[in-house]
Amino acid sequence: MAGIGVGLVGYKFMGRAHSNAYRQLPRFFDVDPAPRMAAICGRDESGVREAADSLGWPSYETDYRRLVERDDVGLVDVVTPGYTHREIVLAALEAGKHVICEKPLANTLAEAGEMLDAARAAGTINAVCFNYRRAPAVQLAKKLIDEGRLGTIRHWRATYLQDFIMDPEFPLIWRLRKELAGSGALGDIGAHSVDLAHFLVGGISEVTGMTQTFVKERPLEGSDGETGRVTGWVTVDDAAAFLARFENGAVGTFEATRFAAGRRNKNAFEINGSKGSVAFDLERMNELEVFFVDDDADVQGFRTVNVTEPGHPYAGAWWPPGHIIGYEHTFVHTMKDLMDGIRAGESPAPTFEDAYRCQAVLDAVERSVEVGGWTKPELGGI
Amino acid sequence: MAGIGVGLVGYKFMGRAHSNAYRQLPRFFDVDPAPRMAAICGRDESGVREAADSLGWPSYETDYRRLVERDDVGLVDVVTPGYTHREIVLAALEAGKHVICEKPLANTLAEAGEMLDAARAAGTINAVCFNYRRAPAVQLAKKLIDEGRLGTIRHWRATYLQDFIMDPEFPLIWRLRKELAGSGALGDIGAHSVDLAHFLVGGISEVTGMTQTFVKERPLEGSDGETGRVTGWVTVDDAAAFLARFENGAVGTFEATRFAAGRRNKNAFEINGSKGSVAFDLERMNELEVFFVDDDADVQGFRTVNVTEPGHPYAGAWWPPGHIIGYEHTFVHTMKDLMDGIRAGESPAPTFEDAYRCQAVLDAVERSVEVGGWTKPELGGI
Amino acid sequence: MAGIGVGLVGYKFMGRAHSNAYRQLPRFFDVDPAPRMAAICGRDESGVREAADSLGWPSYETDYRRLVERDDVGLVDVVTPGYTHREIVLAALEAGKHVICEKPLANTLAEAGEMLDAARAAGTINAVCFNYRRAPAVQLAKKLIDEGRLGTIRHWRATYLQDFIMDPEFPLIWRLRKELAGSGALGDIGAHSVDLAHFLVGGISEVTGMTQTFVKERPLEGSDGETGRVTGWVTVDDAAAFLARFENGAVGTFEATRFAAGRRNKNAFEINGSKGSVAFDLERMNELEVFFVDDDADVQGFRTVNVTEPGHPYAGAWWPPGHIIGYEHTFVHTMKDLMDGIRAGESPAPTFEDAYRCQAVLDAVERSVEVGGWTKPELGGI
Amino acid sequence: MAGIGVGLVGYKFMGRAHSNAYRQLPRFFDVDPAPRMAAICGRDESGVREAADSLGWPSYETDYRRLVERDDVGLVDVVTPGYTHREIVLAALEAGKHVICEKPLANTLAEAGEMLDAARAAGTINAVCFNYRRAPAVQLAKKLIDEGRLGTIRHWRATYLQDFIMDPEFPLIWRLRKELAGSGALGDIGAHSVDLAHFLVGGISEVTGMTQTFVKERPLEGSDGETGRVTGWVTVDDAAAFLARFENGAVGTFEATRFAAGRRNKNAFEINGSKGSVAFDLERMNELEVFFVDDDADVQGFRTVNVTEPGHPYAGAWWPPGHIIGYEHTFVHTMKDLMDGIRAGESPAPTFEDAYRCQAVLDAVERSVEVGGWTKPELGGI
Repeated sequence: MAGIGVGLVGYKFMGRAHSNAYRQLPRFFDVDPAPRMAAICGRDESGVREAADSLGWPSYETDYRRLVERDDVGLVDVVTPGYTHREIVLAALEAGKHVICEKPLANTLAEAGEMLDAARAAGTINAVCFNYRRAPAVQLAKKLIDEGRLGTIRHWRATYLQDFIMDPEFPLIWRLRKELAGSGALGDIGAHSVDLAHFLVGGISEVTGMTQTFVKERPLEGSDGETGRVTGWVTVDDAAAFLARFENGAVGTFEATRFAAGRRNKNAFEINGSKGSVAFDLERMNELEVFFVDDDADVQGFRTVNVTEPGHPYAGAWWPPGHIIGYEHTFVHTMKDLMDGIRAGESPAPTFEDAYRCQAVLDAVERSVEVGGWTKPELGGI
Repeated sequence: MAGIGVGLVGYKFMGRAHSNAYRQLPRFFDVDPAPRMAAICGRDESGVREAADSLGWPSYETDYRRLVERDDVGLVDVVTPGYTHREIVLAALEAGKHVICEKPLANTLAEAGEMLDAARAAGTINAVCFNYRRAPAVQLAKKLIDEGRLGTIRHWRATYLQDFIMDPEFPLIWRLRKELAGSGALGDIGAHSVDLAHFLVGGISEVTGMTQTFVKERPLEGSDGETGRVTGWVTVDDAAAFLARFENGAVGTFEATRFAAGRRNKNAFEINGSKGSVAFDLERMNELEVFFVDDDADVQGFRTVNVTEPGHPYAGAWWPPGHIIGYEHTFVHTMKDLMDGIRAGESPAPTFEDAYRCQAVLDAVERSVEVGGWTKPELGGI
Repeated sequence: MAGIGVGLVGYKFMGRAHSNAYRQLPRFFDVDPAPRMAAICGRDESGVREAADSLGWPSYETDYRRLVERDDVGLVDVVTPGYTHREIVLAALEAGKHVICEKPLANTLAEAGEMLDAARAAGTINAVCFNYRRAPAVQLAKKLIDEGRLGTIRHWRATYLQDFIMDPEFPLIWRLRKELAGSGALGDIGAHSVDLAHFLVGGISEVTGMTQTFVKERPLEGSDGETGRVTGWVTVDDAAAFLARFENGAVGTFEATRFAAGRRNKNAFEINGSKGSVAFDLERMNELEVFFVDDDADVQGFRTVNVTEPGHPYAGAWWPPGHIIGYEHTFVHTMKDLMDGIRAGESPAPTFEDAYRCQAVLDAVERSVEVGGWTKPELGGI
Repeated sequence: MAGIGVGLVGYKFMGRAHSNAYRQLPRFFDVDPAPRMAAICGRDESGVREAADSLGWPSYETDYRRLVERDDVGLVDVVTPGYTHREIVLAALEAGKHVICEKPLANTLAEAGEMLDAARAAGTINAVCFNYRRAPAVQLAKKLIDEGRLGTIRHWRATYLQDFIMDPEFPLIWRLRKELAGSGALGDIGAHSVDLAHFLVGGISEVTGMTQTFVKERPLEGSDGETGRVTGWVTVDDAAAFLARFENGAVGTFEATRFAAGRRNKNAFEINGSKGSVAFDLERMNELEVFFVDDDADVQGFRTVNVTEPGHPYAGAWWPPGHIIGYEHTFVHTMKDLMDGIRAGESPAPTFEDAYRCQAVLDAVERSVEVGGWTKPELGGI
């Protein structure tokens, strides 16, 4: 098991989550290749040096161009803000590396298309980190669907609700500026719902949506009473919702917002099929609600399945039944499947192509908002 | 307390619920006038006779024209299928009676407008039985909003989920035929969500929606293996969803379906405001989930309020705290407010006008489906 | 269907609940005989007159001795405080009437024994109103057990939690005085848990318990700042808990308290068998949690069964699936079974004998507290 | 930050959990000293070698006597079965090392006393790993109690429910043999409840209990159809329950069982005070239910607090609000506080003395079962 050298670009929230995944993966799963943490990269030298130390990276770089060229790096992992993905990923691919990129793949569909083309040209493994696919309960939902136990899928309804920017004095962080973040709640969290819908239900054929910005002006970061309060415009959506039709005839609703008071991170969905239903809520991510039409008539009801049994997806690698796992484990599982993909020579879903499809849906939603009608995802780039 | 004579037209599911309400009302509430059950009306004499006996009506009629003319009837209550509302209600109004009509007020907006005009001309009390407004938990939500305790309302999300027609062999009942029912899940159960949204959030300015019929052909009622299976076309929606913008700047999502396996009667909504949130689910109708932004930081969380305290709306009239009430109590509360309205000479909301507004939203949704874009409720009739 | 005349003794909380049951029963169930509300009885004439009017009784008496002698009364229903049960019930039995008595049957085991003897001598129908047996979800639990679907029962755990006397200024009502109430939380609400355990698991062979009075002195009723605050001693338990062994080898825990902040009326139990489990909570009385050991391994979990289906016990008589019923319906169901028992000539469980067994357990708990060890229910009186 | 060398004795389930804690601790918390994983120890060389590799230990020993003597080991962590704790811990203390030991500290109170004496004589840091104290939600409960926000504590009720040995063919593992495990559900999982009660409510003054063994004979491990099925006797309890009185006047109930079908790992408790209540369930370990008596009357209800806010105990070190942590994090928190204790020169609770008190309660329960009455924990050894 020679392992594969990993170079991580970015070291904030996602950098911590990915670093943890590389450290934990070989402790709980038999993987071949095993990830070998080679170097972490960031522009601010003191920041990245400290991150390397605290996150467990033996070396660091301050220029991603150097990182992607390193011989001891076989896999480049990109966790920087979305507007920087394109150039880093293209450089890594050009250097012949395997690439995993945080979601969203890019801030625009055009960029995503360029990256997809480059990935195909490179021929290396590519993947996008929509980590919630790897919650055991989500995988269980997928298994039930694939085995036909829910029958024909009719309904998808997803909400991704947060509340962290409700205070009008919350500053104008990069996530609230379109030129940096691409979009707001729609691209940041709604993207997860789209990816889950693709994973569990299938392709989306058309959408119509709306977006809303409740707080239009916010103080700049660092602006305060002493220096004088300076504000700027919020240029992304605070909330977005859309209706969707799936290629297989199912219908769906989606909503993403950062203004749902009391909902810290409610990434929830429900699927109704002709033979049963499932419901999931990330705030109780170890549980899946499951209903079967064919249960005995007097004891039909949603079952609260604690997805921690040895036979449940990924769960056997962790703790005994009833001992729950946490948010970060979804990243460990993502890297598990990435290593398997590298060995098999097959990019693990969601690939760049899957992420492009996701981006195409988000793009279609934005166009539908503009035109006030239904639009189709533009998949010509695939 | 001379009371007011009630004449009820219709005796099936809603007939039972309304009869119960008239019987129970004076036992638990001080009302003036008290309802005096005068006569029940139905076209099938043996059916209506039996209903009169079992539901507690001292006499019956087989022609609504005779019922509305009776001197001992001051209030006509119409609980027949929607396509018959217009003619019965117009007759009752013409006879100078007070009228309460089951929802939907009518099957088309034009009919609803005609009824609204007639009600205004008559000058008697008019009301529409959107009974879920009268669940104590819903009234508590209203109180919190009116007192400003949720702040500015930003989000409304409603689902009304049922599953009773999922079996493709379920017959083509009248509710599945457009000429009789007007619409499917949208008008039958989605109408409740629209009324609740109007009540709690306010007027809806525009909508865009989609509808779907999953099972397009069904056996006729009475058709079976022996007589030969004969089928007909389902001409209403099995499911509907739409996005909405409210006049006050809030945004909303709505979904109604009869194909959500395991959801027997999930009439649920969530409202997010700048200072708090509430969530309701009819299957646990004695509870309201309540969140406040200003709670101490370390103990913020949705409270499960058991809305059975003496100080809660309507609850003091029933049982001690923690002793729940049921579905039918919402009708008792409706009749309580109707009696109060009759005494005060003011039609209690939701009035015909409120129901017209509801109908206008449903109508706009149907038009939006046709045109594939946003439409506005046509309120010219008001 | 000539019906049977009912005479009700008592008109407070339980009087309202029983009156409602008699009014509602024939509206929702086919019963023969049907109850015919004959007269209500109370010592305070103005109070009982008003109660007769508001609760629907055509006449009233101020002396129970006259009530039990009335020719138009075939069934005497006793809902007065426990210390008065004995004399009223004995009089009714002596008059040859059927009798239903509110729980607890008596304040002491000796009294209960005397009443049981009298009931046997009378040969009429006798019953005790432990109404929670008649919640549909409880009946469903019973059905699952009787059909062997939970296997051998191993565990019973019951809590009955309330909080209405937590305020030390709450007055010294009769329920807090041993000479009137017999005991505190143990007899008032713990008795319900014992009855449910008998119903669902079987006979209790021995117990050991503890009791506690947290607030030992309280203001007398009517005593206040103006008249001068006068206090008296609380002579019953505020809380009680006990361990139990059942005759069939199961083990059980019981707790009853009026000092569980936030628990308004949490009458909850869980049963674990070799093949499955059930859990119930009166605050969500339309639901039963059900688990089966033999469910497919990947989808095992407690099912939340909404016990409102046509096939569920009593539920078919009410509303469609998902439309819940309330607290008072348990009394309607009790009277339904009482009428059936009168027709069949067989006292419906829980009979006086069942109530005696319940009383014997409570008595054993009190003795165990005194001796500090295990005691057996004294069933010699049976 | 020189760090402290850790030597771990044992490498099964708890060995994995503790190893993970040492690896993760410095990645998420600033600790001084930081743990330096020195060596792991087990009797089976191939087993321990493999464990060292997979769990991240640079060296291993096969004799604990050698481990405790190593110069590079300053802290000995004992995670072997209970019957071996005494000799290993005594050796480590004699060698002048700091010691952390898995619960239960010992299989008998006498052993625990001997170990407590040795710890005092050694003067090094000692601790026992009752890890559930370190769930953030449990710490929040403690904080609310300490700040007086629940008022005077009146009630404790704890259940620890599992179901993993329900199948009668489940083999006679060491946990089911008294000579190895000391006791069954009582000592294994009930011990956690006792420790939590001590932590949150205070000292227990007397108890009375019962125990039960449902399946008395089981196949030996390795015994099967081919070799011939050989059985042995289960010599510990399958289930235990007891009543308790606390020194501060509160009353408590405890139950521990491995026969609660469907309850995989339900370590739950509820505490009721004069001003509020809290409820916890390990299966949803990121949540705490909180109720306050003084909340506005119309919105009182249990709050579901998602204990993942930056201000919540330990939570700020992990992920943003709403991103849950898992079972193993409780061990990381335990080691965090252990490192702080080593720096401060003060043993972090629960210490050996705390564990002795826990053992004394379990011992009292067992004696109460024998004598059939109330017994007091024997604290003479402290």
